[in-house]
Amino acid sequence: MSHNTFGHLFRVTTWGESHGPALGCVVDGCPPGIRFTLAEIQAWMDKRKPGQSRFVTQRREDDIVKVLSGVMLDADGETMISTGTPISMLIENTDQRSKDYGEIARRYRPGHADYTYDVKYGIRDYRGGGRSSARETAARVAAGALARKVVPSLNVRAALIQIGKHKIDRANWDWDQVGQNPFFCPDAAMVPVWEEYLDDIRKAGSSIGAVVEVIAEGVPAGLGAPVYGKLDQDIASLLMSINAVKGVEIGDGFGVAELSGEEDADEMRMGNDGKPIFLSNHAGGILGGISTGEAVVARFAIKPTSSILTEQRSIDVDGNNVEVRTKGRHDPCVGIRAVPIGEAMVACAIADHYLRDRAQTGRNL
Amino acid sequence: MSHNTFGHLFRVTTWGESHGPALGCVVDGCPPGIRFTLAEIQAWMDKRKPGQSRFVTQRREDDIVKVLSGVMLDADGETMISTGTPISMLIENTDQRSKDYGEIARRYRPGHADYTYDVKYGIRDYRGGGRSSARETAARVAAGALARKVVPSLNVRAALIQIGKHKIDRANWDWDQVGQNPFFCPDAAMVPVWEEYLDDIRKAGSSIGAVVEVIAEGVPAGLGAPVYGKLDQDIASLLMSINAVKGVEIGDGFGVAELSGEEDADEMRMGNDGKPIFLSNHAGGILGGISTGEAVVARFAIKPTSSILTEQRSIDVDGNNVEVRTKGRHDPCVGIRAVPIGEAMVACAIADHYLRDRAQTGRNL
Amino acid sequence: MSHNTFGHLFRVTTWGESHGPALGCVVDGCPPGIRFTLAEIQAWMDKRKPGQSRFVTQRREDDIVKVLSGVMLDADGETMISTGTPISMLIENTDQRSKDYGEIARRYRPGHADYTYDVKYGIRDYRGGGRSSARETAARVAAGALARKVVPSLNVRAALIQIGKHKIDRANWDWDQVGQNPFFCPDAAMVPVWEEYLDDIRKAGSSIGAVVEVIAEGVPAGLGAPVYGKLDQDIASLLMSINAVKGVEIGDGFGVAELSGEEDADEMRMGNDGKPIFLSNHAGGILGGISTGEAVVARFAIKPTSSILTEQRSIDVDGNNVEVRTKGRHDPCVGIRAVPIGEAMVACAIADHYLRDRAQTGRNL
Amino acid sequence: MSHNTFGHLFRVTTWGESHGPALGCVVDGCPPGIRFTLAEIQAWMDKRKPGQSRFVTQRREDDIVKVLSGVMLDADGETMISTGTPISMLIENTDQRSKDYGEIARRYRPGHADYTYDVKYGIRDYRGGGRSSARETAARVAAGALARKVVPSLNVRAALIQIGKHKIDRANWDWDQVGQNPFFCPDAAMVPVWEEYLDDIRKAGSSIGAVVEVIAEGVPAGLGAPVYGKLDQDIASLLMSINAVKGVEIGDGFGVAELSGEEDADEMRMGNDGKPIFLSNHAGGILGGISTGEAVVARFAIKPTSSILTEQRSIDVDGNNVEVRTKGRHDPCVGIRAVPIGEAMVACAIADHYLRDRAQTGRNL
Repeated sequence: MSHNTFGHLFRVTTWGESHGPALGCVVDGCPPGIRFTLAEIQAWMDKRKPGQSRFVTQRREDDIVKVLSGVMLDADGETMISTGTPISMLIENTDQRSKDYGEIARRYRPGHADYTYDVKYGIRDYRGGGRSSARETAARVAAGALARKVVPSLNVRAALIQIGKHKIDRANWDWDQVGQNPFFCPDAAMVPVWEEYLDDIRKAGSSIGAVVEVIAEGVPAGLGAPVYGKLDQDIASLLMSINAVKGVEIGDGFGVAELSGEEDADEMRMGNDGKPIFLSNHAGGILGGISTGEAVVARFAIKPTSSILTEQRSIDVDGNNVEVRTKGRHDPCVGIRAVPIGEAMVACAIADHYLRDRAQTGRNL
Repeated sequence: MSHNTFGHLFRVTTWGESHGPALGCVVDGCPPGIRFTLAEIQAWMDKRKPGQSRFVTQRREDDIVKVLSGVMLDADGETMISTGTPISMLIENTDQRSKDYGEIARRYRPGHADYTYDVKYGIRDYRGGGRSSARETAARVAAGALARKVVPSLNVRAALIQIGKHKIDRANWDWDQVGQNPFFCPDAAMVPVWEEYLDDIRKAGSSIGAVVEVIAEGVPAGLGAPVYGKLDQDIASLLMSINAVKGVEIGDGFGVAELSGEEDADEMRMGNDGKPIFLSNHAGGILGGISTGEAVVARFAIKPTSSILTEQRSIDVDGNNVEVRTKGRHDPCVGIRAVPIGEAMVACAIADHYLRDRAQTGRNL
Repeated sequence: MSHNTFGHLFRVTTWGESHGPALGCVVDGCPPGIRFTLAEIQAWMDKRKPGQSRFVTQRREDDIVKVLSGVMLDADGETMISTGTPISMLIENTDQRSKDYGEIARRYRPGHADYTYDVKYGIRDYRGGGRSSARETAARVAAGALARKVVPSLNVRAALIQIGKHKIDRANWDWDQVGQNPFFCPDAAMVPVWEEYLDDIRKAGSSIGAVVEVIAEGVPAGLGAPVYGKLDQDIASLLMSINAVKGVEIGDGFGVAELSGEEDADEMRMGNDGKPIFLSNHAGGILGGISTGEAVVARFAIKPTSSILTEQRSIDVDGNNVEVRTKGRHDPCVGIRAVPIGEAMVACAIADHYLRDRAQTGRNL
Repeated sequence: MSHNTFGHLFRVTTWGESHGPALGCVVDGCPPGIRFTLAEIQAWMDKRKPGQSRFVTQRREDDIVKVLSGVMLDADGETMISTGTPISMLIENTDQRSKDYGEIARRYRPGHADYTYDVKYGIRDYRGGGRSSARETAARVAAGALARKVVPSLNVRAALIQIGKHKIDRANWDWDQVGQNPFFCPDAAMVPVWEEYLDDIRKAGSSIGAVVEVIAEGVPAGLGAPVYGKLDQDIASLLMSINAVKGVEIGDGFGVAELSGEEDADEMRMGNDGKPIFLSNHAGGILGGISTGEAVVARFAIKPTSSILTEQRSIDVDGNNVEVRTKGRHDPCVGIRAVPIGEAMVACAIADHYLRDRAQTGRNL
């Protein structure tokens, strides 16, 4: 058991707080011979890092990853090759805005983990949220960058599909759009709507929830294991572990409640190339906890950040009734930056099951 | 790592297939001195067992639990006392209707795990679904019965809140109703609606999805651990491990996507008894992965069973296009029997975190 | 974490007490397609079962293994084929001699686990030693029988090499002898010596310690992983988990303390077949925690059973000074029956690392 | 599963190679509120660090520990207080002597892990032994320093008791001596013998094995769990994980082979203070895998380092027969520096079981 580790064979341990000197992760179990460059990792880090638009927190962090162990440099002096030993990655905290934490140190912000950390541990690193800060997710994205390399065929992408009541039109889905707007939005028509909507929320010092969809293509059929090593189970666990996530779906998700057996089941046929084809993908690429070979589809809902300008009722550490208002930098919609994090979590889950499958079946997909 | 084990300190390993001689579980880590009777376990088993109404499968299983180890009998000859060693529980399969499995053995039923088991393992126990059968969940309910005993204050209950498009009216919620209809429905007004609706589905040989809500009261504040030992993460994992589940929510769940920070955050005040009070429970009793002391609220969506009378397109093990129709006993709405299973999963997750909390904090809540 | 489970990918959970209805194990992670017969398992069980000579306990147990899950019968009606799901094996307790446990229930036998179980759990199954009984090791041998099948090239054998001060002459080592005497002794010349020696001990109601050596041949090079997944580490852990074991060695073991670097290092040369050869095997087949391809050699020391006829000073559960004498059946040298158990433990450790190697390296040795 | 993690509730993950920028560990599960200073950790590090006498390697490393997460500074600006989140500790490598590794990169040193790493991973960090270097043990000692703090009553000490054939006289055992000679030798009379003996070995470019004894006092009775969570099992596992260790003993160890039941069993009496007393401690403080409250006694044998000046036969990565001679810094007796490492391992095992005991029994010893 480990409170700060996930995965069984592709095993990631993260550490670090928002305002300590650094944060990082140790990836254990990475196969030897995996080749990657720092630039490749950094590209994923850059998707997540703060301060990239007016719609996310204005904290400035470069999120430069240092690889401290587990690799040998190739002759090109740039490509790293994993050796099979643990890969330790470190990211320094640089923009720890100096300020007086006196108020937050003693008052529990509603919707935050302040109260629960204190009630559990009797001590809490209140600086910037400490361990409960979304800074921790930087380490996840670094690990996810390696996970993508472990499964050769894997392509994990995600997009924001809902902010508040504004949902994208799936008919407009265009992956190329995702990299061209500050929301990771696949629907070009929705971008201006969200811009205006979020500007209002941002100016009001408020915040709003969102939904992210992750789609993993190139997942070999056969990953996952009955009945407590199901692929969807581990994806659900990891997506739910992301800060502020309150719901997770696979495939048709909660929509299945309204489907009949005829509507829900994905029929099959043999393809012209002699491979099985699913005629639909209500299952989101997973049946009985095992991947079908179709795209793995997962969605998760992120609540609005509780750091808002509106004064709220709360208590302090001494048990007094107090009012709390969160000043300073904040994310009007934390769901935006959750997009690369969701990708990383799904990539890690799939990489883990890819290795688990090798162990139990002896094949190497 | 274990494919068939869940929990870290209250650790449950299940085994068994639908049509083998028996199925069961081993519960490891149960504290010593826990007192229970077979009748208490059996009461939970009876909630789950098949054949209790026309709305569930007509398979007849008594689901009698035998406790093979880990207990001493008290002087009353009835009360079992756990000794701290593993508790092995066994449930015999009795109604294994003899039939020719020839067709199912060779044809993949759409929506079932037939294909994925075969593609993974190259061998599959096709009799009654083998390991992918809902029979396995009997062992979960037995383990859940012990889990309830581990946390003295715990009260876990669940109800079916949606079948197809028919959702209950939460204003009518009455726990007393749950035990008085074949649906575990808390809304008396909805019962006749569901009866008529499901009768139609049953007669048509079709099936329909559903949503279950689990509410755990008496959960001490402080259970769960950042950041990969979150209580909601483990609840999500275990609920997603239940057969046919495609979505999991905590508290307001996917509803948070439409909430503002003001609407979502649960404000606090000191109660008259000197204890903190949350003025709402959008969080579903969990903040930062740690329980707040409020009721833990989880929901999950169950897809319609794929065993339907309608002919569907599929392939066989030799790669031929075939048509498949599932004859025989089936559940028109498997969501009904998922109610006690959901309770058991949440109880197990909470018991596990209760023990984990003792380890890390040294307190005994 | 699990108190009663070992292995990571070939994962064995045992349960059961000496005087309950049964004991058993669940083997999780066994690859699919492993073929075995009950007769093959039983052959190993028979090596361990009690009552086979006057030098071991006279308890009579047939130790018949039932396989309850995880297999399909082949067309021959006899060969079982693993399906990749958990294999549950059950062994009934049949010779639970009815007697009054009143004395043992309340008095701590020196050298036994009576006191420590009580001080830990506050409750203890005193009947026949409960969970601390060597009965539990029957489940290990059953699991070991499967483990042998997982690694195709594996051949694990063990022998008793020392009883009291009487050590075998290694020059006389003959594997064929091991099956032809009641001691698993590889040195024919030592057999009559041990017979006379043990007869005296047995008649005196005393007991004596012993040393077992396990040799595993056909272990592929490359099993084990730095630095806390070392093969020798896991072998040491499992051998030390056997009742009454107080010491474990790999290769030259404690003898290395007296060796120089020149004497200890195993030099290498290329063989005529183009494969590396080690010119000696001081390392016992493991370097840096990873198998070299040479025979894996492990030894373990078993203390004399504490169940002796001589009266000893002790205390009772109420804190009174008392005298204790263990009447009834006992093993004059429990080391004898530890031979097949040691084999099973080493086989399980190797099978586990065989699967772990597949996961991390992608090869299938 | 994790290759580079040990412990279940006091869980330590180490990372880093001999010649990378740094090495370190992440300690997960440390209870909150544990108070320590960097100076306290550093004191243990200093016991292990190289270059302190002519009898150990002349590599110069300050082994300064940086704590990167998981703590808050107390008001004194010096005392760190654990917060319950993962504690990341980092130690920079500073004396990475620049040299040409060409020869070692391609030739397998007999007795080293060179060959097995290559055969397993197909790639190996040959610089200074990479991950197989004893540098990794610095992280263990840092973790051990925290472990000592977790169990308030714990006092773990170790001593070197044998070098080559020269064993200490136990009658001379004096803990005060241990800190006053370069060997951690408790027998003042043996120090000059070892000095002369090791000087000869050092000058000859040879090396010699040794035995370390670890004694843990203040271990509460009741730690450890049957049957695969035995305290001695975990101690054996961790001691065997130390580089070059080939044997592990608890209590009388291999000596039990020659003992009768009467000689081996530790009789009991009630003490004048109403607490049970063991009249001897052949068991080494552990019965049935559970601590008795007596001192836990463990010993381990360390082989001579294989880095010797004598030319040895080996092969290279291309399969050619070659001769290998290890030039440069080396330890004539690596057993010396294993003393603080052994302490750390035993402390970690006990801390882990201390937390496990809290979980299962609910008490806080």
